[in-house]
Amino acid sequence: MKTVKIILCGCGGVGKEFLQLLADRGEELVAKYDLQLIVMGAADLKGAALTNSDEGLPVAELVTYLKDGNEVQNFPTFGKEGLTGAEIIAQGNADVIVEATPTDLKDGGVAKTHVFGAIEQSMDIVSANKGPFVLFYEELFKRAKAKGVGLHISAATAAALPTLDVGLICLAGTRVLSAEGILNGTTNYILTQMYVNGTAYDVALKEAQKLGIAETDPSYDVEGKDSANKTLLIANRVFGQTLSLSDVSVQGITEVTPEDIEEARKSDKIIKLISEVKVEGDSFKLSVSPKALDKTHPLASVNGSEKAISYDTDTMGGITVMGGKSSPVGAAAAMLKDLINAFVSK
Amino acid sequence: MKTVKIILCGCGGVGKEFLQLLADRGEELVAKYDLQLIVMGAADLKGAALTNSDEGLPVAELVTYLKDGNEVQNFPTFGKEGLTGAEIIAQGNADVIVEATPTDLKDGGVAKTHVFGAIEQSMDIVSANKGPFVLFYEELFKRAKAKGVGLHISAATAAALPTLDVGLICLAGTRVLSAEGILNGTTNYILTQMYVNGTAYDVALKEAQKLGIAETDPSYDVEGKDSANKTLLIANRVFGQTLSLSDVSVQGITEVTPEDIEEARKSDKIIKLISEVKVEGDSFKLSVSPKALDKTHPLASVNGSEKAISYDTDTMGGITVMGGKSSPVGAAAAMLKDLINAFVSK
Repeated sequence: MKTVKIILCGCGGVGKEFLQLLADRGEELVAKYDLQLIVMGAADLKGAALTNSDEGLPVAELVTYLKDGNEVQNFPTFGKEGLTGAEIIAQGNADVIVEATPTDLKDGGVAKTHVFGAIEQSMDIVSANKGPFVLFYEELFKRAKAKGVGLHISAATAAALPTLDVGLICLAGTRVLSAEGILNGTTNYILTQMYVNGTAYDVALKEAQKLGIAETDPSYDVEGKDSANKTLLIANRVFGQTLSLSDVSVQGITEVTPEDIEEARKSDKIIKLISEVKVEGDSFKLSVSPKALDKTHPLASVNGSEKAISYDTDTMGGITVMGGKSSPVGAAAAMLKDLINAFVSK
Repeated sequence: MKTVKIILCGCGGVGKEFLQLLADRGEELVAKYDLQLIVMGAADLKGAALTNSDEGLPVAELVTYLKDGNEVQNFPTFGKEGLTGAEIIAQGNADVIVEATPTDLKDGGVAKTHVFGAIEQSMDIVSANKGPFVLFYEELFKRAKAKGVGLHISAATAAALPTLDVGLICLAGTRVLSAEGILNGTTNYILTQMYVNGTAYDVALKEAQKLGIAETDPSYDVEGKDSANKTLLIANRVFGQTLSLSDVSVQGITEVTPEDIEEARKSDKIIKLISEVKVEGDSFKLSVSPKALDKTHPLASVNGSEKAISYDTDTMGGITVMGGKSSPVGAAAAMLKDLINAFVSK
């Protein structure tokens, strides 16, 4: 049996669901994959829980404790106030960190320290946090390569929708010519409502906010930033690039009018916010913008808050994958998936 | 660099395209995956080409020779009349066989001998041939497991459409609750024509035959047999079963009338030939049958000769993947993909 020691950084919604998955299906993972996942430490804002025991932390008890509204540093026996994720990582007593702190796109936040610290310790990285990968990809990639460290960021690139797995594994050996995606559920929901009900952007946005699909400050989604981040990560991972955000041309959906949608409808088209990676000779063109798609386009039928990505290849033709739960559970499941695929031998 | 020695069984359309891929992108595979794929032997009906050299056969010359209409046993220097795939496999001088002989669903044909012989030699198996896996899965699986041999049958289960990769890799760690697929392009083409043009089944079939989409004897496709075979393989691989064809309830599209299609259309539905794997308690229900899908069903927009599969899971929700070239190149590319994923370390 393979045993993998984990340090969890971040005990918010995604971190808790990750612990819940480990608590619920530990035996299943052993039976199915011969894999034992052990949490050595779990850190949050004010402290951490830590053990040196080969049995790891009691995850079932820990997740119940956290879901009851308690904080990790107060977890009996194992909790320590003020202990940081960076300090735990520096002890080097784990195989992988699971980074689930909130994404910080200004300077990467604590996740930057976690991720660079993990590479220093030759620990693999599984991350739902986009920050360090969007901001410092080239540096991270180089250091990780030098140390033989795997970067597993499914959860940061549309979570349960397997954008990277499909591009890297299902299409291995093909030449991937382009990628087009609907990578943001909020904007797709708004555009779908505008198309179906003929509502104006403002109205559809307010409805999405009421339903909890859009944030109170929706700018990250509606201005195309979230899509741009995911586009960048997909370009770097699937197309083997080391590009940065300034390489992505970005236009959101705030200027899309009911008239635009009607005009598109007249020629049997539908407007979607499309992320695109195009190979043009030796260079790569990355963009996010509203586009009128033919009704027969594989992304045209991706509606509501669903996401999808289409790859075009030379030898396999086009492959489109859609769906995947957008939720803390979906993100946690994507991290678990990455762990299994990274550590279970074929 | 990892070097993998291959024995190719079958030099027909798929086998030739596989050799072509190796000839065309050998350097690319080294650069991208640090992987060198070497063909030690290539067998067909009347003989084989064989080498003991660590450089393998000259694949670029071989594929040109074969595409010029020559037979492999006459390939200068390396060809040997009467030498069989089974004999080459028995020499044990390879890591993997690539099985690309025509599928034989009566008794497995030569592929049965190849596949069981390869397991005996502890060689991995990459196969585009469904025969042995449909007919003898339980026995094959047990022997392969005992010998630590990997069975890689993407090319046999919808080829470039990554039915197995998505189920096994993209959904690792989830509980897969069900699978629904449109796994046969010919029948989907016929049903799409019936829906779009209101034509009768016979008319649509004849048109598909004219276009080369349906075979002269269409029974394998239209009676649902091809779909049933793929359904069985997906159930066994993704759901970890050892079921056989008698466990699949099969109904083809020959009885579907324009009236059925119109009736479905009235309630905003569309009829598709659906392969289904359902978990019911501890047992599995496998079926192939025409079903009227709601227009919002993820498979409802899969038209023409396209194929697709939808998985439903507990933690990631539903994931649908569609597309993939249906051609000898697509099947060859699926075999190359399996080779890369089987032998490149993570």
